[in-house]
Amino acid sequence: MINVIGIGQNRENMTLGAVKAIEESDVIIGYKKYINQIEDLVLGKEIIKKGMGDEIYRAEMAIQKSLEGQTVSLISSGDPGVFGMANVLYQIVSKYDGVEVKVYPGVSALNYASSHLGAPLHDFAAISLSNILTPLSEIEKKLRHALEANLIVAIYNPISKTRKEPFRRFKQCVLDIKGENALIGIVDSTYEPPKATIVEVKNLTEDIVNMSCTLIVGNDITYQQEDKLITPRGYVIRSDIHELSRNHYEKFLNGEIAHGPNRDCDYYPCHWDGQYCDFCYCPFYPCGDSATGGEWIKGKNVWNCKDCNWLHKKEAVECLREPLENILEEVEDLKAKKKTLLKLRKACLLHVDPNDL
Amino acid sequence: MINVIGIGQNRENMTLGAVKAIEESDVIIGYKKYINQIEDLVLGKEIIKKGMGDEIYRAEMAIQKSLEGQTVSLISSGDPGVFGMANVLYQIVSKYDGVEVKVYPGVSALNYASSHLGAPLHDFAAISLSNILTPLSEIEKKLRHALEANLIVAIYNPISKTRKEPFRRFKQCVLDIKGENALIGIVDSTYEPPKATIVEVKNLTEDIVNMSCTLIVGNDITYQQEDKLITPRGYVIRSDIHELSRNHYEKFLNGEIAHGPNRDCDYYPCHWDGQYCDFCYCPFYPCGDSATGGEWIKGKNVWNCKDCNWLHKKEAVECLREPLENILEEVEDLKAKKKTLLKLRKACLLHVDPNDL
Repeated sequence: MINVIGIGQNRENMTLGAVKAIEESDVIIGYKKYINQIEDLVLGKEIIKKGMGDEIYRAEMAIQKSLEGQTVSLISSGDPGVFGMANVLYQIVSKYDGVEVKVYPGVSALNYASSHLGAPLHDFAAISLSNILTPLSEIEKKLRHALEANLIVAIYNPISKTRKEPFRRFKQCVLDIKGENALIGIVDSTYEPPKATIVEVKNLTEDIVNMSCTLIVGNDITYQQEDKLITPRGYVIRSDIHELSRNHYEKFLNGEIAHGPNRDCDYYPCHWDGQYCDFCYCPFYPCGDSATGGEWIKGKNVWNCKDCNWLHKKEAVECLREPLENILEEVEDLKAKKKTLLKLRKACLLHVDPNDL
Repeated sequence: MINVIGIGQNRENMTLGAVKAIEESDVIIGYKKYINQIEDLVLGKEIIKKGMGDEIYRAEMAIQKSLEGQTVSLISSGDPGVFGMANVLYQIVSKYDGVEVKVYPGVSALNYASSHLGAPLHDFAAISLSNILTPLSEIEKKLRHALEANLIVAIYNPISKTRKEPFRRFKQCVLDIKGENALIGIVDSTYEPPKATIVEVKNLTEDIVNMSCTLIVGNDITYQQEDKLITPRGYVIRSDIHELSRNHYEKFLNGEIAHGPNRDCDYYPCHWDGQYCDFCYCPFYPCGDSATGGEWIKGKNVWNCKDCNWLHKKEAVECLREPLENILEEVEDLKAKKKTLLKLRKACLLHVDPNDL
């Protein structure tokens, strides 16, 4: 019997099942660093520590010991199914008959890193930059697609002393696709507790990243909230329709609101010359999503659109206007159809089809 | 103090930190089903159970209790950072001053599902099909890019009684991009232990999927090995160069091996009429990777290229020939440069640039 065990990143996020399986094993096999992490759990057992890169030796050894009738624990950091020992073991175990394997999943580096950064994940990709057995062209293709798709991107094995080219390509992909202000969280596990840093990609230099780091690249709506990296999952704030907003959207529904700048307005330009006025009042208020620059006034339960003027940009208005006319049948729909409205907002922010919600 | 806690999928993959934090909390808040899972750990504590969809209520309640000075555990299934409570809490906590938050990462559904399927992951994407707050067009864009990029794709929230359209789109994307034989692993957690099934996408019907399922879509080299779904991570098998292979590649290096079919050969066509003979002996032997149809002869330590004839296809030869000529300077390089050769093989299998390894 071979238990392929993920021991997480530290004792706190090790699973109960991993502890029990290790206790019940006769032989413990793993990379030195990981065995050292569980030294107190393996006293009196046969221990086979090997260096990095000896994956095949470790897998073969686990199989031999298992065929001899021993219960073996093959140790991976994090989750053995995520760039760990599970794949290699299953490839090699097919040489033999009658070896039973059980995989114990663990907390992977991306989950650990995210917990220290705040809440950066929504739909995401996990990509290893190790090109030891993976072509650079394959890595770059995956990075480009994931970034284009607006997935959050978690990076494993970002750099090593001898492997710097994949990291350079990665940085260039983010610059090309996301621009220089894209937010990247870096969690460095050489420290305990780990050191979490948030930088814009233009400031991502090789000296602040090492092989014990996990990187999380935000998507187009990820924002920094104090020292945390947050990707809004979205939620609906119930709120009454303000009188001024009600008046505006009654006119809007009657076709009385012109498209573009309203230079006849006494207050024009309340933001900047050239601003569009189709949505004088925000149809999404309160969105509760700081991605466009709004924020809560602390302790007041008031949403403040402080730095948000997205709604007055030509591009936003051109995306929103027609679908909004289709969604709003009466002013009450500003409240009743809030979920649909928030999806429309997101579609326009992320440049996907606003008529396919 | 608010602990945002991932309790994994079951007791076995709950972390030590989660257990301890729950024990040290005064108030436990969560969706009913998850609280029931940890009933024995929360005896005597204040418990606030709410239904699905009450995320905001739960987050606000956690904040209120914390502001009253209590230690609160806000419970998520799996990992709270992966489609869990962490994002919503961080969005709402910004309303208030002085609320301390700690996220306890957990084993997410994709890690759990993978452990029951075998070892299906390599670089991957995780995408939720819930379109409650996410536009369908955004979901479809992410699916298409992830599949095009050859990422493994883990699917959360695949279907519900009222939400079937995203699932239909998902299936169509896989059919369009991967073809009808693409392998999909389904892990259904309504069973304990969970039920793992592997199907080709053409056989993926709505009746075999429910909201407790996690799906894992394989990439172009994922294969089924008995009842397991495996994506080879790749590893290098050291092996001597066979005499016949040595002879062939000596001629190859001398420019004596013609391009295309070798109809003058006594054995032509050993596979099929029209086969290419540039690589009469496989330059990657033994690759140890069942993705192209080879397998180990059990108990013999012999790699058998049984169902692999990829190397004799026009398309493969046209991709491989020139880069191989650049890599091989002498016959010994078949052994000495095995890592590079395996990267070349992978680049051609995955249709990425074979000159950029």
